[in-house]
Amino acid sequence: MDRVQVIELKESILENNDQDAALLRDELKDKGVFYLNVMSSPGSGKTTTILQILKRLSGEFRVGVMEADIDSSVDALKVQEAGYPAVQLHTGGMCHLDAQMSRQGMQGLPEDTQVVILENVGNLVCPAEFDTGAVMNLVILSVPEGDDKPLKYPLMFEKCQAAVINKIDAMPAFDFDLEKASAAIRQRNPEMEIFPISAASGEGVDALCEYLSGQIRKWLAAE
Amino acid sequence: MDRVQVIELKESILENNDQDAALLRDELKDKGVFYLNVMSSPGSGKTTTILQILKRLSGEFRVGVMEADIDSSVDALKVQEAGYPAVQLHTGGMCHLDAQMSRQGMQGLPEDTQVVILENVGNLVCPAEFDTGAVMNLVILSVPEGDDKPLKYPLMFEKCQAAVINKIDAMPAFDFDLEKASAAIRQRNPEMEIFPISAASGEGVDALCEYLSGQIRKWLAAE
Repeated sequence: MDRVQVIELKESILENNDQDAALLRDELKDKGVFYLNVMSSPGSGKTTTILQILKRLSGEFRVGVMEADIDSSVDALKVQEAGYPAVQLHTGGMCHLDAQMSRQGMQGLPEDTQVVILENVGNLVCPAEFDTGAVMNLVILSVPEGDDKPLKYPLMFEKCQAAVINKIDAMPAFDFDLEKASAAIRQRNPEMEIFPISAASGEGVDALCEYLSGQIRKWLAAE
Repeated sequence: MDRVQVIELKESILENNDQDAALLRDELKDKGVFYLNVMSSPGSGKTTTILQILKRLSGEFRVGVMEADIDSSVDALKVQEAGYPAVQLHTGGMCHLDAQMSRQGMQGLPEDTQVVILENVGNLVCPAEFDTGAVMNLVILSVPEGDDKPLKYPLMFEKCQAAVINKIDAMPAFDFDLEKASAAIRQRNPEMEIFPISAASGEGVDALCEYLSGQIRKWLAAE
């Protein structure tokens, strides 16, 4: 019935995930692959944001998406229907992905993929605890969730290099203070790049993608 | 600086949490305490919903709230400022609560509390895996998260007896189908009681609280 490839992930047997993640990053560097790990709460707009990113990056790079979920294949279907390579990863109840699971997933994407985007399990806690081997970690915080979330989920904001504040078009309906959210994020991570966007309308996504393109070019060009 | 009591939870040493949770439920039954475990994604409106519940239940029962977070005390402060007993539980990075941690938390509430409400860590995955000893599990799904969430987080919806669909006032701004959401919930759990509400405006909360009062009275009256 499924029109997308589904990989049932096996739990890792490696004791040292940090070591394995560093090794994966080295391998990806050698192969010329940029690996972006996208994390957020359930329903913050990861899939819609990724679709907007794909639209802008696919002209320059060969892109592919790994959609991780405990169950269902709706997200991989959406990406594939939009015309991009996608594989659905089922975690079998697990709340996060690690490096070994990332390896399993990448086997479901075309050999020559240059930019692999992982949509991690919707969860602001556990995914931050496991290095997936990604070159960059990106967190999405959406307006309806509230501007206090960086205070409550510190590790997630410490581990990411970029934060997207999504659903800014819904700001009038919610009591969300962009200044307060940015200050809370910077309290956790002073170096964080912050991008307010509306993934639904596309507002702000160009700036995000210029930043991402720059980071990807740097990674692919570097020795 | 903190004006609320903060309990730094210790990780449980018990091997059999299920057994301990059953034991806690028995003890609560003997003491005449109803324990409600409220779970959701970050930012689904747990605190606001709990405040609405407190307003309606506090006339009939002696209520108290345990606010679990990895860090910060903003939620316990809010509840306390609204005039209800509250204790902040810090999980020290842990993504869930179990029975032993529930016991630790209850020591921070008045001895004669009849209804203990736990605001669990914002997470749709891990809290569902650990029995807290609660008499009832309630999940909140908010409109901006999307109507497909029950498909992606099956265990959470299987483990709960009641589902609140919050932020229905924001429905016009989001592509959320209440029928579809209800069908997805019932696919996971045919017996689920579903309450569409707006915790911000109070719409629908009366029906939810009538149901809760009924369940509480039944628990407190039963042998």
